Amino acid sequence: MKQNYKLHISYDGTRYSGWQNQGNTDATIQGKLEAVLSKMTGSPVDIIGAGRTDAGVHAEEMTANVHLDTNLSANAIRDYLNQYLPQDICVTEVREASDRFHSRYNATGKTYRYSCYTGPLKPVFDRNYVYVLDQVPDVAAMRKAASHLMGTHDFRSFCGNPKFKKSTIRTVDSIKIEQHGPYITFTYHGDGFLQNMIRILTGTLLEVGFGKRFPDNMIQVLEDKNRASAGFMAPALGLCLIQVDYN
Amino acid sequence: MKQNYKLHISYDGTRYSGWQNQGNTDATIQGKLEAVLSKMTGSPVDIIGAGRTDAGVHAEEMTANVHLDTNLSANAIRDYLNQYLPQDICVTEVREASDRFHSRYNATGKTYRYSCYTGPLKPVFDRNYVYVLDQVPDVAAMRKAASHLMGTHDFRSFCGNPKFKKSTIRTVDSIKIEQHGPYITFTYHGDGFLQNMIRILTGTLLEVGFGKRFPDNMIQVLEDKNRASAGFMAPALGLCLIQVDYN
Repeated sequence: MKQNYKLHISYDGTRYSGWQNQGNTDATIQGKLEAVLSKMTGSPVDIIGAGRTDAGVHAEEMTANVHLDTNLSANAIRDYLNQYLPQDICVTEVREASDRFHSRYNATGKTYRYSCYTGPLKPVFDRNYVYVLDQVPDVAAMRKAASHLMGTHDFRSFCGNPKFKKSTIRTVDSIKIEQHGPYITFTYHGDGFLQNMIRILTGTLLEVGFGKRFPDNMIQVLEDKNRASAGFMAPALGLCLIQVDYN
Repeated sequence: MKQNYKLHISYDGTRYSGWQNQGNTDATIQGKLEAVLSKMTGSPVDIIGAGRTDAGVHAEEMTANVHLDTNLSANAIRDYLNQYLPQDICVTEVREASDRFHSRYNATGKTYRYSCYTGPLKPVFDRNYVYVLDQVPDVAAMRKAASHLMGTHDFRSFCGNPKFKKSTIRTVDSIKIEQHGPYITFTYHGDGFLQNMIRILTGTLLEVGFGKRFPDNMIQVLEDKNRASAGFMAPALGLCLIQVDYN
């Protein structure tokens, strides 16, 4: 009889080709977790993540679920995982979940943070976690642009997958842009995000911050429903999945 | 006509076998800096560091000096270095110095910080910068032990080099032990430190914190002038050189 478990996972994505298995499972977070769980239970294991993160993207708290046939307690599963996982992946919590809990289908919201560094010198200790800008963007202009992006919109212009067939309508209820010393962070909360959407939103907002676009241009970009209208895709290393919400 | 320059350097020591050249210069911070400066000036360069740091030890601000024959300004030298150095080494400042300035002989004090992590789970993002403890040490007991170590003493018991022939008398004027959430940091300031001295001091204080020694045992350890009397050497990754003082 298999029990369903809900897991919270923290990882430094620098070395990985993303959350999701694709070819070489040894290069993904999912693959690393499944390898340890298969070793633990003696049979193949499929772990379901709340979402994919791109290669190089980090997570403070990814949520996943997995059905396991084991006599170990939830805490013992967590400890077993942490003993055998590499140092850049940590399972922060394992809890028994109802049989129907599905980390992706049941997710009601997600928080992502994108971090930039604007100091004059290379950030030696943060180098894998921040996107280094060579000029300081205009935060007030970016906040004005962000106000146009909040709400329920068709975000097709911000979708990195041109072949995406399903609805590209999403609700982004909050975009907070903060400046602390040389750091500028963009914190996004919404009901879900399209492929590369946060990175393209951030790149487009940075273009506003650098004076390459007016804040009101965001209205046109949304209307165009065309990836070519939006800005560049900010690099993966600055992005971190902060939390996944459930009811 | 060569000009003497004073440099400040920040580095993540994880990948390196220490500051000082020994055999493979490509694996040391000194070697990396000399390689770029030699390329810049077209002739061999010797850079003098204020001290050695062990393999895996970090620096927020190491000081060094170097005599160079160049037409570049101090800021242009800094920018050239940062352009060609790897991402885990950053030259934060280059200034012209008097011909007689010697980063090691003229240093009057140094600050080092040793960082420990006592949380229940692996620190994914800090993993190269903290020593993970599997129990929480008694901070009050460690502070009492540290009070015996402050002042001018013969620190031979805390010297990692048994063949060291010179004086092992040093003045440690401050040892601050702080607890912030799961982090415990030891900040040392003194006129100079022997080889591995901070790591052995930290290991010995941790043994007090774990109840393996009484705080007053430090008096005996100092008197013994014998490495075997002191505690274990805490691992390199938790150690960071914070600053070097000059008059």
